[in-house]
Amino acid sequence: MKAYAYVDRVGLDALQLVERPDPAAPGPREIVLKLRAAALNYRDLAIAAGTYHVGVCPPLVPLSDGAGEVVAAGSKVTRFRVGDLACPVYLPDWLDGPISPRVARRRLGGPSDGVLQEFMRLSEEEAVRAPHHLAPVEAACLPVTAVTAWRSLYEVGALAPGDSLVVQGAGGLSTAAIQFAAAGGAHVISLVRCGEHQARLRELGAHEVVVSADSADWTARILELSGGLGADAALNVAGGDTLTPMVRALRVGGSVHLAGYAAGTIAALDLFDAIRRAATLHVATAGSRHSFESLVRVMELHSLRPAIARSFDVSEIQEAFACLSKGGHVGKVVLTF
Amino acid sequence: MKAYAYVDRVGLDALQLVERPDPAAPGPREIVLKLRAAALNYRDLAIAAGTYHVGVCPPLVPLSDGAGEVVAAGSKVTRFRVGDLACPVYLPDWLDGPISPRVARRRLGGPSDGVLQEFMRLSEEEAVRAPHHLAPVEAACLPVTAVTAWRSLYEVGALAPGDSLVVQGAGGLSTAAIQFAAAGGAHVISLVRCGEHQARLRELGAHEVVVSADSADWTARILELSGGLGADAALNVAGGDTLTPMVRALRVGGSVHLAGYAAGTIAALDLFDAIRRAATLHVATAGSRHSFESLVRVMELHSLRPAIARSFDVSEIQEAFACLSKGGHVGKVVLTF
Amino acid sequence: MKAYAYVDRVGLDALQLVERPDPAAPGPREIVLKLRAAALNYRDLAIAAGTYHVGVCPPLVPLSDGAGEVVAAGSKVTRFRVGDLACPVYLPDWLDGPISPRVARRRLGGPSDGVLQEFMRLSEEEAVRAPHHLAPVEAACLPVTAVTAWRSLYEVGALAPGDSLVVQGAGGLSTAAIQFAAAGGAHVISLVRCGEHQARLRELGAHEVVVSADSADWTARILELSGGLGADAALNVAGGDTLTPMVRALRVGGSVHLAGYAAGTIAALDLFDAIRRAATLHVATAGSRHSFESLVRVMELHSLRPAIARSFDVSEIQEAFACLSKGGHVGKVVLTF
Amino acid sequence: MKAYAYVDRVGLDALQLVERPDPAAPGPREIVLKLRAAALNYRDLAIAAGTYHVGVCPPLVPLSDGAGEVVAAGSKVTRFRVGDLACPVYLPDWLDGPISPRVARRRLGGPSDGVLQEFMRLSEEEAVRAPHHLAPVEAACLPVTAVTAWRSLYEVGALAPGDSLVVQGAGGLSTAAIQFAAAGGAHVISLVRCGEHQARLRELGAHEVVVSADSADWTARILELSGGLGADAALNVAGGDTLTPMVRALRVGGSVHLAGYAAGTIAALDLFDAIRRAATLHVATAGSRHSFESLVRVMELHSLRPAIARSFDVSEIQEAFACLSKGGHVGKVVLTF
Repeated sequence: MKAYAYVDRVGLDALQLVERPDPAAPGPREIVLKLRAAALNYRDLAIAAGTYHVGVCPPLVPLSDGAGEVVAAGSKVTRFRVGDLACPVYLPDWLDGPISPRVARRRLGGPSDGVLQEFMRLSEEEAVRAPHHLAPVEAACLPVTAVTAWRSLYEVGALAPGDSLVVQGAGGLSTAAIQFAAAGGAHVISLVRCGEHQARLRELGAHEVVVSADSADWTARILELSGGLGADAALNVAGGDTLTPMVRALRVGGSVHLAGYAAGTIAALDLFDAIRRAATLHVATAGSRHSFESLVRVMELHSLRPAIARSFDVSEIQEAFACLSKGGHVGKVVLTF
Repeated sequence: MKAYAYVDRVGLDALQLVERPDPAAPGPREIVLKLRAAALNYRDLAIAAGTYHVGVCPPLVPLSDGAGEVVAAGSKVTRFRVGDLACPVYLPDWLDGPISPRVARRRLGGPSDGVLQEFMRLSEEEAVRAPHHLAPVEAACLPVTAVTAWRSLYEVGALAPGDSLVVQGAGGLSTAAIQFAAAGGAHVISLVRCGEHQARLRELGAHEVVVSADSADWTARILELSGGLGADAALNVAGGDTLTPMVRALRVGGSVHLAGYAAGTIAALDLFDAIRRAATLHVATAGSRHSFESLVRVMELHSLRPAIARSFDVSEIQEAFACLSKGGHVGKVVLTF
Repeated sequence: MKAYAYVDRVGLDALQLVERPDPAAPGPREIVLKLRAAALNYRDLAIAAGTYHVGVCPPLVPLSDGAGEVVAAGSKVTRFRVGDLACPVYLPDWLDGPISPRVARRRLGGPSDGVLQEFMRLSEEEAVRAPHHLAPVEAACLPVTAVTAWRSLYEVGALAPGDSLVVQGAGGLSTAAIQFAAAGGAHVISLVRCGEHQARLRELGAHEVVVSADSADWTARILELSGGLGADAALNVAGGDTLTPMVRALRVGGSVHLAGYAAGTIAALDLFDAIRRAATLHVATAGSRHSFESLVRVMELHSLRPAIARSFDVSEIQEAFACLSKGGHVGKVVLTF
Repeated sequence: MKAYAYVDRVGLDALQLVERPDPAAPGPREIVLKLRAAALNYRDLAIAAGTYHVGVCPPLVPLSDGAGEVVAAGSKVTRFRVGDLACPVYLPDWLDGPISPRVARRRLGGPSDGVLQEFMRLSEEEAVRAPHHLAPVEAACLPVTAVTAWRSLYEVGALAPGDSLVVQGAGGLSTAAIQFAAAGGAHVISLVRCGEHQARLRELGAHEVVVSADSADWTARILELSGGLGADAALNVAGGDTLTPMVRALRVGGSVHLAGYAAGTIAALDLFDAIRRAATLHVATAGSRHSFESLVRVMELHSLRPAIARSFDVSEIQEAFACLSKGGHVGKVVLTF
């Protein structure tokens, strides 16, 4: 079978199309997936750039987010049938409950092999059936991105109807958060750098769009939009110098979910501002298989479809990475196989 | 001014129209409400019947749920303006946080005087502005009924989008729960005794209606409708012998909110069933002013209007009580002044 | 190897000493335990009596609580070394997180084979190292009994130092709860039927002992001992008619953990009392492997040793069951092999 | 009466002994306290230095932490009797529940007048009875410092017996945290800059003392002391560059309470480290009256006495501030009147 891999060293220019042995026949509780689509994350860029400095070493098949068809299933498999569309779980050992050292070790796309390969053989416990109404490219957006958004808002946090939520950015994680928060009845304030995608963001569920380029003081604008008291919660995907103004936009007792580092991997927190807001900061780390299954249920109930910014053929992987790196899009950058 | 009161003893047949002094001018932080509407609760029936045996003694102005117009406001009042529609808070000392002995003492409609009077003078802290889009009869449904439903689902519980919720009954509390759960993106299963109101219940937000009269085993039907595993949460308004079958309809780890006793004030819980379900039972007790304000925000964001079963003139109070007692309606029984 | 089993039918008089094949050599991630001790639970009595009506069928090796020595370990085992004292996990699939249908199925002692056998071969993931300072009979008290007490107080509940906790009974679960609550700095009120074991209960950590036989109104006595407002939490092991008076002994907003049914498997809850207390009832169901490991850490830090009521040789299994059934002891009834 | 106040401007050198009118006779629900002792916080230094830039303006009586004797009580006062030792509540409007904008406004010591005065007249709702066994200088350590420690560990967090907690520093907040965590059965690791106070810290409840000056890599030392996996929780009182190494010392899923800024008011958080730990950061802001009352109950049950570093006469207020500013002590810097 074919796969893309960092063979000698990890780095975008070292990514190669390689030939690997076809998967063996599945064991009694295993399945074989034929991958149909994958999606890119900033994490993939950080790993490729060598800045995500945790035991990621070659050879490595990259990418964490993918979806494929079940083409073979062991005799005792109960969770899938041949023909099902399924997604490998990003943290395959995390079935349920809070994160723990035990479940945080194996991660698809680094340090474990990811989804940029023709087939994957895995335990049936390590995959989740995709929502019935989704195409493979849509399902490929779920395992890291949508699960992280879901878990942050509804499992780490407990976003309630009517709560005001600020969602920074317009990438895959941010658009998933907008959709889930809207499905849950929250008041969604989208915070973006430029104004070109407002209509799309509203279509996805944003009630308000604040354009930071238009607003010298976007903190003040958010306070105004959240009844003068500040937002109940916020999703921060940029880190760096954006954390403190976001904390200032919270109500007293509010919380921020930190789920990215687009503007800087060191987030600077002004403690006086944070004390005044009595803020809580939750650092996001994907979610369990149970989180994923909860999300599937929600997406089916509400007929939600992930926002796709641009789709590339897998052979255009370098262009896809360049597109993600450039930014400015709404939704996920995906690959079809 | 006029008021209805239990003068010598508490009992429906002892309820009298009485003359009371007009309220004094409000103090600096007080308001005067001219009541426009009230709504009935089973608690009012239990108090009148003498079965609600906690220090309720005459003279007493009954009813806990009401709404009125602010007709006077003290010089330092900041929460209201004359002309606002406002609701007295049922537990006036409960501003925020968990319930405590301190905040559970004063209760409108017994042991403290309730809303069945022409005017009420109260601290501005003891009232909440009604949702902008509601008429007085609609706002009158909120203080006990809707607040209890809201707090149970979203403050005591943390109902998430996609969660399955069973709501027993079709009265004011149950219809409010259906509306809030639907606004929050849950999968709502309405459980009623007879099938005549199905269309109305679906209109309010129920995805499924289970008619217990049609279904020897409604527990099995609910399990089927909630993916075979059982419901995540349930609202029980009947008590008595309905608790155990409702527990059986839960998923392992699910919870029941106990908010009524229409079928019996002693709820019988089969411990083997409860252990198998690892169930949690939350006994509901209204909510704080902060709960109420959260609910106002949600109702405005989602343009929710309480379901009103039947409206009576205040002079028809006995007919209204009879109507509530008879049951079989959808929504609240209300009074207009 | 030898084992005790219900061969043809489940029932104490049908328990037989049988010969079974010795365990195979452990797989790479498996261990073999040589059982050294076991402990009895009321659940074992209920299963034997046929009242615990969930898919428990012969042949069945009974008992859930046990401890043994690791006598063989596969080549890839990392959690144990030969010679370690270890306990099989009662719910072997429950590694962490909340209980779920998936993890609630396999249960040692019914429906799965339990610990009343000479050897057990199991995945290394399905056992927990015993606290270093405990003898086998002490470690055998932990898997169901102590884990249930621990999880109820500190994982389902969040007992804080200074909180008042009522612990009903003096059996294994109750004495474990007394010890853990005392280690956590709570104010522990022991509630027992007769007064003979007061000194022992205080030694285990009880600050107060209320003897219900001495006190027509033990509810009032508990209220008095908990500052007039009622207890923050209570552990109920009797069920039946004891639930309502226990709810009356709670503070407003307090909670009861339901962990037994010695006085009746139907718990009768007076809803008026429960509403007045705004009570929460948590039905206990053992705990995860992570709960167990947390408990090991606590027992080592505080040098806690389970209370043992009486120890029998395994050949005296019928006498041991009779002793448990008779009651009146403090701590666990255990068996040595 | 006498008071110390910032009269024309806020600043240590502008602090003056002034004469103010004696308090009026208390209203029906008011009390008059004769202050006996006060205690200093870093917040007082920050206010005096003008760096705590929130609406604090002269004239202002400084200091938030104090205790006094009830010398007069209104006719309807039920919470106190003349002669009681009591502490004014730092955030007088915060009775219970989570923090909110409403309760965060009034703060003793800035922007509201603080405790550095001979008498205070206040609503009986705005004070808490001191633990019975404490002297005034000890009780004066509680309202901000001990309440912040208590709430962080047991109300915002839920520290359980056996959990490992890192406590940075040896000031009033840190020593209170050590005492409360030890009372709650946690495994307490004290982290200090120099080694001179180890015996005292162990006496207060620390199981381990890590001296950062001795240990180039104190993060590694903490990981080692917490079973290799990292600490469950940590209290950070220094901020600045100490946050990231503290996050690295957490277990996956652990949390940090941020309660000070001795090393810098901007805390720099490395997001890669934080993501790897899936850390939660809670910013502390004192606590409610209910938090304070819970703490009184714990201190009485466990006979805890606050650690006092040095006691000054109120006339030596400047020396006291200098002592706090210099640091290096164990416990609170207090003033007696």
